[in-house]
Amino acid sequence: MLTFADVEAAATRISGRVRRTPVLPAADGVWFKLEFLQHTGSFKARGALNNVLAAAERGELPAAGVIAASGGNAGIAVAWAAAQVGVPAEIHVPVTAPAVKVARLKALGATVVQTGTEYAQSWAASVERARVTGAYQCHAYDQVPMVAGAGTVALELVADVEVDTVLVAVGGGGLIGGIAAALEPTGVRVVSVEPRTASAMHSALAAGEVVPVSVSGVAADSLGAPSVGRIAFDVASRTRMGAVLVSDEDILAARRRLWDEWRIVTETGAAAAYAALSGGAYVPADGERVAVVLCGANTNPADLA
Amino acid sequence: MLTFADVEAAATRISGRVRRTPVLPAADGVWFKLEFLQHTGSFKARGALNNVLAAAERGELPAAGVIAASGGNAGIAVAWAAAQVGVPAEIHVPVTAPAVKVARLKALGATVVQTGTEYAQSWAASVERARVTGAYQCHAYDQVPMVAGAGTVALELVADVEVDTVLVAVGGGGLIGGIAAALEPTGVRVVSVEPRTASAMHSALAAGEVVPVSVSGVAADSLGAPSVGRIAFDVASRTRMGAVLVSDEDILAARRRLWDEWRIVTETGAAAAYAALSGGAYVPADGERVAVVLCGANTNPADLA
Repeated sequence: MLTFADVEAAATRISGRVRRTPVLPAADGVWFKLEFLQHTGSFKARGALNNVLAAAERGELPAAGVIAASGGNAGIAVAWAAAQVGVPAEIHVPVTAPAVKVARLKALGATVVQTGTEYAQSWAASVERARVTGAYQCHAYDQVPMVAGAGTVALELVADVEVDTVLVAVGGGGLIGGIAAALEPTGVRVVSVEPRTASAMHSALAAGEVVPVSVSGVAADSLGAPSVGRIAFDVASRTRMGAVLVSDEDILAARRRLWDEWRIVTETGAAAAYAALSGGAYVPADGERVAVVLCGANTNPADLA
Repeated sequence: MLTFADVEAAATRISGRVRRTPVLPAADGVWFKLEFLQHTGSFKARGALNNVLAAAERGELPAAGVIAASGGNAGIAVAWAAAQVGVPAEIHVPVTAPAVKVARLKALGATVVQTGTEYAQSWAASVERARVTGAYQCHAYDQVPMVAGAGTVALELVADVEVDTVLVAVGGGGLIGGIAAALEPTGVRVVSVEPRTASAMHSALAAGEVVPVSVSGVAADSLGAPSVGRIAFDVASRTRMGAVLVSDEDILAARRRLWDEWRIVTETGAAAAYAALSGGAYVPADGERVAVVLCGANTNPADLA
């Protein structure tokens, strides 16, 4: 079970080693937490560094280093965190992973292993390799130190600004689980925002249990988890988290509007959080103060020209 | 003569009507003032709004509204400020102005007048029109309320973080003049950064007087003033402002690095300020705390793909 204490311990552990990202008063009653400014271009750096440092503290970080399966933000963050701590990282991705992502992982010093054509195959290969090498396995989102580290973003947020509600884009729930645990003592409401076509958290909350979902759409690359993580689901259930769904059209319009009105570039997954506001899926009450976590910018900005 | 009191009065006047942009602790000893998040995508919104509001206070804002000559950030900011105050704006640009800039001015409600092929011709046309219509003329950078408004960015900066030095990109000097006046009572050092090929401030400080310069290079669109403004030069002279020059190559590398390391998009002119650090033209002393003002992002981000 993930608690506020886990997030607090993570904040102490990673303090000064991740960026303390600022908050922009974006509009009347709306604040943006500019977490896309984080190392590696997404919030995942927080959890990955906490994960690696905590493993080292527990004496569970062998010379073989860390291993993960992800061609996306989590893989980049684990490679970065390992480099920060000075241990090897082995990142498993499908053979279909874009060359630019493989190059980025290698530039961070990681060994990249390409297996199969789907994430599940990379994951299986990474688990087998970890068994052989003894490397510490980092999960992309469903591992307590990963979620606790991500939650530190919320401690900064409420230290900087008083808000009633926080909107968070959800894939596997690694970010929102940490945020909800961080804010559990405060009474600040946390609302999950997902694409209609990748609704792992919304579906789980509706069913009362973790359920598999099929995923597609413009944000599937970062929000397309086949089911929400158990850690995040537990926090979401006990904190009575709200959950809204947004359309692909609203996500693309939100990404465009972030650029047009604020000159902020985010990836589509991160824009989903703002889409809940700009597209009307979440309508604040009169005077309600809403923070939107803009959690990543690993994207090609060419279409914003 | 522009003084701290002018900047302070501007801050009171525009408070709550411009964005209070945040500061990012970017690296050890380096802070970024994220002014590209400002309304209209550049710091010019501060000066333009102060200019229009101050004219209204003095009873010098007629029903004919405001007039300016600029196809760039200043024109967009004047059009925006006029719309905020609810008066007409007439913006003069050359016939060669890109259609996208003309469209943006019109979208802000401005009347766009296209004359000649050079800025000087648009300026002359705007002065003649102002004489006929009685509209209040806004200069792009050499007008006390414009410079004072821009200087408010520095009051926010030093309220948020303690620094020894501020690096500022300079075109006509409208931003750095205000910043230097704002920081005159504090002892914080202000350093002008210009392209080698658009060195109006550097040349003026070397000559001891405002001198004409020829302009070219990758940042000429925003930093290519034919001479530095007298207001900025006066402040620069009396505060013994430092001035460094950077190459086009360093500017382009700085713009690329801002994206690669922080997922920040700026226009080339704004990247020039960071180029002084990243390219080594400005080398901080041991322990020196440096702020870099990232002042605009009206750019096409496609080349950052």
